[in-house]
Amino acid sequence: MTWFYAFDLFGVAVFAITGALMAGRKSMDLFGVLVIAIITALGGGTLRDVILGHHPVSWIRNDVYILVATLAAIGTVLWVRLTRPINETGLLVADAFGLAVFTVIGTQVALSHEVPVSAAVIMGVMTGVAGGVMRDIICNEIPLIFHKEIYATACIVGSLAYIALSQLTLREDIAAGLCITIVLAIRLAAIRWHLALPRFHLLDRNDRAQ
Amino acid sequence: MTWFYAFDLFGVAVFAITGALMAGRKSMDLFGVLVIAIITALGGGTLRDVILGHHPVSWIRNDVYILVATLAAIGTVLWVRLTRPINETGLLVADAFGLAVFTVIGTQVALSHEVPVSAAVIMGVMTGVAGGVMRDIICNEIPLIFHKEIYATACIVGSLAYIALSQLTLREDIAAGLCITIVLAIRLAAIRWHLALPRFHLLDRNDRAQ
Amino acid sequence: MTWFYAFDLFGVAVFAITGALMAGRKSMDLFGVLVIAIITALGGGTLRDVILGHHPVSWIRNDVYILVATLAAIGTVLWVRLTRPINETGLLVADAFGLAVFTVIGTQVALSHEVPVSAAVIMGVMTGVAGGVMRDIICNEIPLIFHKEIYATACIVGSLAYIALSQLTLREDIAAGLCITIVLAIRLAAIRWHLALPRFHLLDRNDRAQ
Repeated sequence: MTWFYAFDLFGVAVFAITGALMAGRKSMDLFGVLVIAIITALGGGTLRDVILGHHPVSWIRNDVYILVATLAAIGTVLWVRLTRPINETGLLVADAFGLAVFTVIGTQVALSHEVPVSAAVIMGVMTGVAGGVMRDIICNEIPLIFHKEIYATACIVGSLAYIALSQLTLREDIAAGLCITIVLAIRLAAIRWHLALPRFHLLDRNDRAQ
Repeated sequence: MTWFYAFDLFGVAVFAITGALMAGRKSMDLFGVLVIAIITALGGGTLRDVILGHHPVSWIRNDVYILVATLAAIGTVLWVRLTRPINETGLLVADAFGLAVFTVIGTQVALSHEVPVSAAVIMGVMTGVAGGVMRDIICNEIPLIFHKEIYATACIVGSLAYIALSQLTLREDIAAGLCITIVLAIRLAAIRWHLALPRFHLLDRNDRAQ
Repeated sequence: MTWFYAFDLFGVAVFAITGALMAGRKSMDLFGVLVIAIITALGGGTLRDVILGHHPVSWIRNDVYILVATLAAIGTVLWVRLTRPINETGLLVADAFGLAVFTVIGTQVALSHEVPVSAAVIMGVMTGVAGGVMRDIICNEIPLIFHKEIYATACIVGSLAYIALSQLTLREDIAAGLCITIVLAIRLAAIRWHLALPRFHLLDRNDRAQ
């Protein structure tokens, strides 16, 4: 699936850009920018492969992944230095697309290990979101995806859809394309109308006492 | 050991509840609650299996673990929504029990890989406490277990006891039961009398200058 | 390479000391001090081995590593308790030496798995710096190495040098010695003249609006 590989690299680049921007917000040096970009782009897939025992990890097998993430990080710094504004809406849409592709890849890899459905969904979601969670933890923020608009929920639906479609005799690339569309549609709708899951507020006993 | 499997699932449920409650204190959304609950419940065992190269990881082999953690998280949210107060003492005792069971399981798995004693104890402690440490790191807190009453110390003693007993010709379930009792007794005594390890205070040079 | 094994253990001890000192600055208890010391000393190598699928991890194969880290942590607490001041310059130099040794080890292990150059460099850098990054994340700090003087950059140069030298018919220990010298020289120069990489400052939209 050549077009799928291109989508994968596009997702790596977009996630690396969001990592580099976060590192910039924390005034990191160029090494920090590079590390955060690479972790954001490849951390989710690495965690998935390590937990599945799927060796070698993708970026160790093929150094194009590291190259793309590195170029995206350098490009981001240059772009911002040249004081071009960042197209925030464009970035959100690109991020939604990367999320959709990574979710499908994660689910595929998990299914190739013949895991139960619950584990396959977790691997799909993990591939999509864990890189961003690592980025936020290293940058000392509570991960964004645990309290903003619907994000991981789109991955859960997409991953379940892929698992269902993979039971049929559908061609693999058609199933992948359908699921990417589903994740993308849910995520873009969530951005457009600020859809969010309900929150769970629990007061500390200390808070209550005041 | 059927009763032991039941104990294991009980530990998973209790740890998931403490994760869900922490997520609620951080006002996370329902996805965040679910993720924190699952990581708290299964993170320690996953880290142990990944470091040992023990594949497949327990919750990938058997999806009952994810199911129990999910139900516990949902149950916690519903319970709190119905404004029932949380029985903090009951939760502490249940947590101590889960800790004891996880420590024994972790030590058993490590011993089955024929590791040295130091690594077996670390794996026992890790299985007991690493899920809670991950929960605290993601929620942007310094892990509780590094500065509160005796907690991990109970795991160290229990794990060493299990290793010693496993040298004898004792039946495995009797050794496990004895060690669970030891961890539980130490932990409950620590809670009851606020026993804590001495702290190591080191002033920053900046602090000293003031 | 017996001298190299001695260097390795020296690096483990130094990294454990920096971990114990950080734990002291956060007023952790003795268990917390021990855990942070062990993670700082052995976390980088463990992460490398887990990602490479290189089992068993070094400290599981050989319990001298855990022993050295534990003794270094206990020694640090005793030293500070006896109110001896810490020789900060000596510690920085020792840390630079440990960094150099770990970088070479990481690169060697990666090359033994026949990975591409990009992955070998990442493994070298990871072995040198990831333990310190984990220490900072658990202690709720943004990792120091992402915004202070040149640190990881020294590892990148040293790792690339080792890869280049390993192509020649040089004896392995001479190549290792040369690369340790390179990393050490860069790092000591960075400390002496406060050399730093340029930073990437990016204002938040919120900041800009004020």
